[in-house]
Amino acid sequence: MHVALIHYPVVNRKNEIIGSAVTNLDLHDIARASKTYGVATYWVVTPDVTQQHLVSQIFDHWTTGHGCRVNPDRAAALSLIRICSTLDEVIDNITGSKSRKKKPLVVATSACGDHANVSFPSLRQELDDGGVVVLLFGTAWGLAPSVMDQVDLVLPPVKGAGTFNHLSVRSAVSIVLDRLLGCCVDE
Amino acid sequence: MHVALIHYPVVNRKNEIIGSAVTNLDLHDIARASKTYGVATYWVVTPDVTQQHLVSQIFDHWTTGHGCRVNPDRAAALSLIRICSTLDEVIDNITGSKSRKKKPLVVATSACGDHANVSFPSLRQELDDGGVVVLLFGTAWGLAPSVMDQVDLVLPPVKGAGTFNHLSVRSAVSIVLDRLLGCCVDE
Repeated sequence: MHVALIHYPVVNRKNEIIGSAVTNLDLHDIARASKTYGVATYWVVTPDVTQQHLVSQIFDHWTTGHGCRVNPDRAAALSLIRICSTLDEVIDNITGSKSRKKKPLVVATSACGDHANVSFPSLRQELDDGGVVVLLFGTAWGLAPSVMDQVDLVLPPVKGAGTFNHLSVRSAVSIVLDRLLGCCVDE
Repeated sequence: MHVALIHYPVVNRKNEIIGSAVTNLDLHDIARASKTYGVATYWVVTPDVTQQHLVSQIFDHWTTGHGCRVNPDRAAALSLIRICSTLDEVIDNITGSKSRKKKPLVVATSACGDHANVSFPSLRQELDDGGVVVLLFGTAWGLAPSVMDQVDLVLPPVKGAGTFNHLSVRSAVSIVLDRLLGCCVDE
């Protein structure tokens, strides 16, 4: 399982295509959740080289710098991070890393249920059967239509008690990973 | 269901009793998850009056100030926040708000499984049966022993693929709420 956090192309509240800024907390919280659930790589996707440089500095601080010595657990989590400019580059990297060159199943998450076409248990079964999946999460107001057009499958939105569906992306990643990879859900 | 985020007494990495600082992201992310899952109140517990004032300022900005006009969804989430000095004050407030004056079931979460004595499905059933529960989350390195001594029940840690259990408190709250209150888990 791979997780990709997309900063471009995403939409803003007016549904316009934008590139969002990387946030430190998205790196930490999602890396920690990814490490907890055995995710192979946490891809941070932004074409902005200044932002890539920022991610790189945070990565270095926690994996080889002072942060690593102070908090080795954080190093274990942050070391899952890889920077890419585009989703295509992520897919090429995952495909290229397998000797049989099999493209991963590209699965989008969305707070809007319009395009949902795979259930959580079905995707969990796919993973149990050894399928390689890259799970996409959009920052800002979500993945741009051009990304949605490119994916193989779309998960339904995470639902709670009512109609409010404005989880942070950090919460959404955590919940989706638990539904797909959590152990002892019946404990 | 109520959620309480405890900033004192908690432990640091050396297992010493400390008071932690409130963070803006804990207010936002946990309020958004609480609103998603129909939590009645999100109690922010700190005896530090400067910290209480900070929470109050953030609360006002998003529920009645400029933030409310820009992002009403955020106002709906942040409006669940109440500030208390101690856990006892939280329990008294919840107890006092019911005409039959019934004390809520006080349930701790912990990344260490030593004291776990209730399963996620059992507690979910308790909630389905109308039980009033206050779920405690510790900041820093977790709830102090004096808090653990005070609770009725302890949930098992959230488990992923291996032994790494260093989720952010924001992720932990999101996952626990989904396990206890999520709809369509079988979707």
